[in-house]
Amino acid sequence: MGTQRRTRGATYAEAGVDIDAGERFARSIGALLRRTHGPRVIANEGGFAGLFRLDYNQKLFARNYRDPVLVACTDGVGTKVELARQIGRFDTIGIDLVAMSVNDLVVQGAEPLLFLDYIAVGKVDQDRLHAIVGGVSRGCEIAGCALIGGETAEMPDVYGPDGLDLAGFALGVVELKRAIDPVRVAPGDVVLGLASSGVHSNGYSLVRRIVGSARLDLAGVCKELDPERTLGEVLLEPTRIYADPIVRTLRAYRVKKVVSGMAHITGGGLAGNLARALHPGVDAVLDRSAWEIPPVFEFLRRTGKVAPEEMDRVFNMGIGFCVVVRPTFADAVARRLTRAGESVFTIGEIVEGGGGVRFL
Amino acid sequence: MGTQRRTRGATYAEAGVDIDAGERFARSIGALLRRTHGPRVIANEGGFAGLFRLDYNQKLFARNYRDPVLVACTDGVGTKVELARQIGRFDTIGIDLVAMSVNDLVVQGAEPLLFLDYIAVGKVDQDRLHAIVGGVSRGCEIAGCALIGGETAEMPDVYGPDGLDLAGFALGVVELKRAIDPVRVAPGDVVLGLASSGVHSNGYSLVRRIVGSARLDLAGVCKELDPERTLGEVLLEPTRIYADPIVRTLRAYRVKKVVSGMAHITGGGLAGNLARALHPGVDAVLDRSAWEIPPVFEFLRRTGKVAPEEMDRVFNMGIGFCVVVRPTFADAVARRLTRAGESVFTIGEIVEGGGGVRFL
Repeated sequence: MGTQRRTRGATYAEAGVDIDAGERFARSIGALLRRTHGPRVIANEGGFAGLFRLDYNQKLFARNYRDPVLVACTDGVGTKVELARQIGRFDTIGIDLVAMSVNDLVVQGAEPLLFLDYIAVGKVDQDRLHAIVGGVSRGCEIAGCALIGGETAEMPDVYGPDGLDLAGFALGVVELKRAIDPVRVAPGDVVLGLASSGVHSNGYSLVRRIVGSARLDLAGVCKELDPERTLGEVLLEPTRIYADPIVRTLRAYRVKKVVSGMAHITGGGLAGNLARALHPGVDAVLDRSAWEIPPVFEFLRRTGKVAPEEMDRVFNMGIGFCVVVRPTFADAVARRLTRAGESVFTIGEIVEGGGGVRFL
Repeated sequence: MGTQRRTRGATYAEAGVDIDAGERFARSIGALLRRTHGPRVIANEGGFAGLFRLDYNQKLFARNYRDPVLVACTDGVGTKVELARQIGRFDTIGIDLVAMSVNDLVVQGAEPLLFLDYIAVGKVDQDRLHAIVGGVSRGCEIAGCALIGGETAEMPDVYGPDGLDLAGFALGVVELKRAIDPVRVAPGDVVLGLASSGVHSNGYSLVRRIVGSARLDLAGVCKELDPERTLGEVLLEPTRIYADPIVRTLRAYRVKKVVSGMAHITGGGLAGNLARALHPGVDAVLDRSAWEIPPVFEFLRRTGKVAPEEMDRVFNMGIGFCVVVRPTFADAVARRLTRAGESVFTIGEIVEGGGGVRFL
């Protein structure tokens, strides 16, 4: 099992960079990478890049993939990283990082294969970095992909001593004929909504502004949200990773294409993102009463006096992922996702239209 | 041709995020992405991820790759991004970003396939972002890989209004049996050094400290370095991309494995990085007189009163990439790389030893 991870630093202690601390850290996280490695990861200790065999059993790969398409995306966690810093909790922000990219991958019908992270800090703090990579590793376990490399950059001046940012990169594979294509979405298709776990990783500049303006205490408990956790912990709840249940569902229907479209609900909200799964000949008509908006969104709306349309544009409002399904399979797919642990709501249907999303 | 690029923002103008500016930017750079796309990139306009067909002619791929291994890495440009900000020039830093990752890829023997960039800014500045992505696109053209996606994150508070950071992700493929493996390096092998184009993208915290301490004018001309360009421009010279000549050289020897090791010289210097290409049974013995140290390093050493061993540890000192070659092929490989435009020096040889790098 390989643990390719590098640490960048200017190797000049007086200029604010401690290369030895960086290297100690890189060694310390080997186990966090290795626990995500299956037999397809090739050992490359100390190497310049991570190695991932497309399949350890070439015949198996050839049976499943005649025309494999690589699917790649990158994302960060936005200013949720700043909230984590304010609260001083870094063990879950890595889960958010993995979630943001792998949820985008599976929208294309892809099976996640591997992940790499980029962590930039003003100053290397071993405990903090270890907690962050621990979360990335945990996220990769949940998503079923291998963490095969990463970069830790110590960058004084670009970041303050306590500042940081994260970026993630995910790669998956899908058989060309089974890649999700918006043209297949048809009138009559059913829109299933999968519950989000909270605010996920979008809208945190607004969240932090609301918290700041109302002078709320992130370390205090807000009973209407959660009597057991602080407001900060509620807001930091990690983004749900939908990869495994979605991949399993797609695999269960090898011949029939029962899923015609998917959407990961990020910045732009439910309407903005579901529209990306449609073609110009159809609309999605959604019923708001089909699911309950979680208390955290009502709390943010009221506290920040945010217009409802702004809430819809910024936040997921309780639905983190959408699956558009052929009507005869809607119940079966919903049951399958429910058994996999998702809270599934039938939130709308596809009608003839102009490529938009409307609410009933 | 697809142009998958997303822009993250909290969609709340008062909180410092202008989602419309972000979206305008994403549309404006479509052409910069498309010019890097070959027939293997699959159109996915507005999609959630970038799509890359492993080969547009499956038979060709199957002939070249029986057991394909994906090679992935990530890197940033360190605080060279801060130097670019100080000078106000953003059209080449994207070349550095591509170089840092693809040079690592080819060290493994891989052919670069695709690239994604993550750009985080405190405030969206269309011209600046356009210049950055223009450089990334140019770098991908030089490296022969497709820019199939990216993320622009507007993150007030994490970055100042003028602050920014970049991260890049590169993916390549290599046939398992042709992947470079340190165990193959043998006594007698010749070490070829390829000239760097300047400081590349490591050591900039030290560079900026030297410039700052000596109160040098980045906008002024330093005649001993370059009578035509400012000091800032000399220091900002983009990192050389070795991908294309290396890939062509490896392809020229399909049967014989004439290259036994490679190293991309980054943080840690020539000794630190060449050691990563060795196994514990050999040493590399290098001859400093085999190449001339470029004036910029002598200038930095003298101006900053930097110890020679520190210079060696932080900077590439004129050699940006090493190729370890079987002795009978050393001249042929050197000629081939020279014809491809590289300045090639025979800088040392492999002897029995303990996995280290020594100077004559």
